[in-house]
Amino acid sequence: MSPRIVALGGGHGLYATLSAARRLTPHVTAIVTVADDGGSSGRLRSELDVVPPGDLRMALAALASDSPHGRLWATIIQHRFGGSGALAGHPIGNLILAGLNEVLADPVAALDELGRILGVKGRVLPMSPVGLSIEADVAGLESDPRMSRVIRGQVAIATTVGKVRRVRLLPGDPPATRQAVDAIMSADLVVLGPGSWFTSVIPHVLVPQLASALQSSPARRALVLNLVAEPGETAGFSVERHIHVLSQHAPAFTVHDIVVDSSRVPGEREREQLRRTANILAARVEFADVSRPGTPLHDPARLAAALEGVLLRGSTPAPAVQQPTVPTPANGPRGDDPWR
Amino acid sequence: MSPRIVALGGGHGLYATLSAARRLTPHVTAIVTVADDGGSSGRLRSELDVVPPGDLRMALAALASDSPHGRLWATIIQHRFGGSGALAGHPIGNLILAGLNEVLADPVAALDELGRILGVKGRVLPMSPVGLSIEADVAGLESDPRMSRVIRGQVAIATTVGKVRRVRLLPGDPPATRQAVDAIMSADLVVLGPGSWFTSVIPHVLVPQLASALQSSPARRALVLNLVAEPGETAGFSVERHIHVLSQHAPAFTVHDIVVDSSRVPGEREREQLRRTANILAARVEFADVSRPGTPLHDPARLAAALEGVLLRGSTPAPAVQQPTVPTPANGPRGDDPWR
Repeated sequence: MSPRIVALGGGHGLYATLSAARRLTPHVTAIVTVADDGGSSGRLRSELDVVPPGDLRMALAALASDSPHGRLWATIIQHRFGGSGALAGHPIGNLILAGLNEVLADPVAALDELGRILGVKGRVLPMSPVGLSIEADVAGLESDPRMSRVIRGQVAIATTVGKVRRVRLLPGDPPATRQAVDAIMSADLVVLGPGSWFTSVIPHVLVPQLASALQSSPARRALVLNLVAEPGETAGFSVERHIHVLSQHAPAFTVHDIVVDSSRVPGEREREQLRRTANILAARVEFADVSRPGTPLHDPARLAAALEGVLLRGSTPAPAVQQPTVPTPANGPRGDDPWR
Repeated sequence: MSPRIVALGGGHGLYATLSAARRLTPHVTAIVTVADDGGSSGRLRSELDVVPPGDLRMALAALASDSPHGRLWATIIQHRFGGSGALAGHPIGNLILAGLNEVLADPVAALDELGRILGVKGRVLPMSPVGLSIEADVAGLESDPRMSRVIRGQVAIATTVGKVRRVRLLPGDPPATRQAVDAIMSADLVVLGPGSWFTSVIPHVLVPQLASALQSSPARRALVLNLVAEPGETAGFSVERHIHVLSQHAPAFTVHDIVVDSSRVPGEREREQLRRTANILAARVEFADVSRPGTPLHDPARLAAALEGVLLRGSTPAPAVQQPTVPTPANGPRGDDPWR
């Protein structure tokens, strides 16, 4: 029996998880953030009533069939129009998705139809059937470092020179895509991350129905940490801080496994500290070689091997987190974690 | 054995022929004009190096499979984006064709690929692999009615208030699409028209390799006349004048059959006159009920029946036209045919 894997994220991080997951099973479901307001997606949102298609298109390309037709259409949907006119820079797939959505009046039907053309075996779903916005409290933009300012929009948050403290979705209680909830509930493994932490990863646990499904699903849950801190939204973030920030946004959220690239935490003392921090999410830590040597990118084969290891540990439910009794890590969090 | 039918034209006229031809055989090839400079096609030509996709898209839709997927994609490619932004008014299919053409760098490969998605059994081909322009000598725009003025562009010509005397393609000796020449040479029946006479029908005989293939092919050749004179380029044109104008643009061109709607030439005296005019093209005239009652549109089933009748007459070569010895029709052409 091939396992059912659900991967939640957005952008290049999700592309990496999907490229790994498809090596393990044909039953892969991508659940994708829908708050992008930049580039082609932003232009399309400003002129059409459409869920931002960019990250959805990337996920379709990641799951496209290996047949000649699948590979051709993966190339086609990723191709950006040239020239310097009204179409310049739009990936063809974004326009096809926007058009399918106008005709079918249903973003899931639009994705299923383009997925069929690409020979996608699994499924790509928006986390919400409506486009969302992200708003952040950002510190370090005022002369008084204790003051924070509200920054709105995925691009603005991802590129801020300030320190992101907290993000919120707008509207604040967005609906989850029904099929996404169903996929989580019937999954064997759910993978959150890697990806832009505040704008592609955390948003998933801010959709109440998704957060609830994640916690009540019998699936094993894994969190894949980023290989490097991203300039902008997570500049200078330690591994621990990624975990703290996620937990702060969703105090009831737990995972069974946290997958960390071995080279990012080489020393045993640091690993012990990370294991203690992982208790916040009631998680064990899996140190694995998951990067492509010499790059800041996940290697699909290596990440697949790590996820397979996680899968083999079965679907024993993790203990519910008991926030008050979680032991305070001896060495963390660092003093530069201002939200604690 | 299903016959091989090639239909040459553009726009709604070609759509009608294709809707008829597909009832007779799965082996239908559309050869489509590529001089459109208006609407979405014009906008795309002005910003990308692309053969104008509009008429090609229409032909693909006409030949789309009757399966649910075929019908869905015919709807999708014909759907025009809403809103009031940069995409507004573009049919999705035009953008897909433009994108496929950028990726594949070959308009025929792009059409074959989109045709595959639509389940097209036949093939849609541009008459030339490069976008062309049309230029016309138009009278009646100056105070001196003998003066003519050069008007350039399909839209300008199709909507002129003057009288179109002659059209030319720019560049003047355009290449034919190789696969279009091959299709003509191996066809059982070739159908030219109906359609905008100067801008969708006559251009085909102005491409030297197409004109030569049409004349040397063993296929039976039929010319389908328009049901009504179009406002603009053929306003006030008689049935005979359509034939004269075509012959003037391609003096060596002949057809075996001219298909005319019976109701357009009801009287026997007028029919006799039309038969004499048809000698210019060495053609016999087929009077048939081909219109949808109460509309200026061809009825696909009736046009199919008329084309089937033409097909059944076999592929006996028509005699070569002998311009000097063609008998001058007793009652024609009318004095308002200024180009004679």
